[in-house]
Amino acid sequence: MSGLFISFEGPDGAGKTTALNALVPLLKQRANQDIVLSREPGGSEIAEQIRKIILAIHDEKMDDRTEALLYAAARRQHVVDVIRPSLADNKILLSDRFVDSSIAYQGGGREIGTKEVAEINDFAINGTLPDLTIYFDISPEVGLSRIRKDHEGEMDRLEKEALSFHKRVHSAYLDLVDANPDRIKSINANQAPEKVVDDALNVIINRFPNVFNKGE
Amino acid sequence: MSGLFISFEGPDGAGKTTALNALVPLLKQRANQDIVLSREPGGSEIAEQIRKIILAIHDEKMDDRTEALLYAAARRQHVVDVIRPSLADNKILLSDRFVDSSIAYQGGGREIGTKEVAEINDFAINGTLPDLTIYFDISPEVGLSRIRKDHEGEMDRLEKEALSFHKRVHSAYLDLVDANPDRIKSINANQAPEKVVDDALNVIINRFPNVFNKGE
Repeated sequence: MSGLFISFEGPDGAGKTTALNALVPLLKQRANQDIVLSREPGGSEIAEQIRKIILAIHDEKMDDRTEALLYAAARRQHVVDVIRPSLADNKILLSDRFVDSSIAYQGGGREIGTKEVAEINDFAINGTLPDLTIYFDISPEVGLSRIRKDHEGEMDRLEKEALSFHKRVHSAYLDLVDANPDRIKSINANQAPEKVVDDALNVIINRFPNVFNKGE
Repeated sequence: MSGLFISFEGPDGAGKTTALNALVPLLKQRANQDIVLSREPGGSEIAEQIRKIILAIHDEKMDDRTEALLYAAARRQHVVDVIRPSLADNKILLSDRFVDSSIAYQGGGREIGTKEVAEINDFAINGTLPDLTIYFDISPEVGLSRIRKDHEGEMDRLEKEALSFHKRVHSAYLDLVDANPDRIKSINANQAPEKVVDDALNVIINRFPNVFNKGE
């Protein structure tokens, strides 16, 4: 048994966070050990302070590249404070978003460029990549309609962006899936939530058969 | 007449900030226009908030790469909020530290690597480099002894680092001078303060004879 790092990625509205909460007890039971659940941006004291700056300042004042550098700074501290110690301790760590989110959102969505954003994140993670990334694929139209249904009147500033933004994010995610076939596994998030959880669970169990048993 | 961007660089204790304060009225008189004086990290509202995080958190908790990314984020916002608008407005802007400080301090001093730190700063400045950089060269031993004399008992955490750290910073600065002979001009900061100001003034006036007159 060794430490395991699995990240969960996808556009807003893909049901990623809901699925993660359902997955934790299922994976805990099958691994017979605790699961560490973390999230980005944040996950450590310093990272949370940086997160507050990102969320507090209105985007018309904060430059896109400043935002991308702050996300990378928070990620670095998350890696050092949470991810690496968990792996060194042989724990199973699930992270709600990681480096692919920055590449898709800042690089693709905000059009800084996926290569440029990948480079500053390479500096931040310095080799610490997930063993597996589950990508929740959903069409930008469906994702956006789910966000609007769930949070009407209280969308955050990323969610407020237009459909064209979400299409760019989606396209960048698909490029990442194509470029990283071993690390990133795509599941269909247009399905019912129970089916999405089931698909994610099966991908994880089949990928690491020595860590998770098949259940009853 | 066009906008002009001059940065001032050097190890701690080189007398850079003192010289800058003396230079502003002299340059103002010779250019017959106002001089904008800025500093890093900081120089804009968002950049100052990031600066507060950097200075408030003890270094044993903040990872070196996190710090380097935060400096780059503050620099980006400084470029967008202060430097580019000043240049677009045909102003003369002097900055106390800029990109070379991160390369020397984080890349060299903290041993992240000068190439790595230069890359995240290329992302931050995205082409906005000084027209001229004055490098205040001083031996690490003299610089360190000046810091200790000036601020005994209240050195900040960068100043607290050992002489070996200051030697690495000095060496990285010398490499930058070698690699950028057109942009960076070195002056001898081991001299008396009045002589240092005089040398800096002459370098600037001789480099931009159409902007500054020779004085009386």
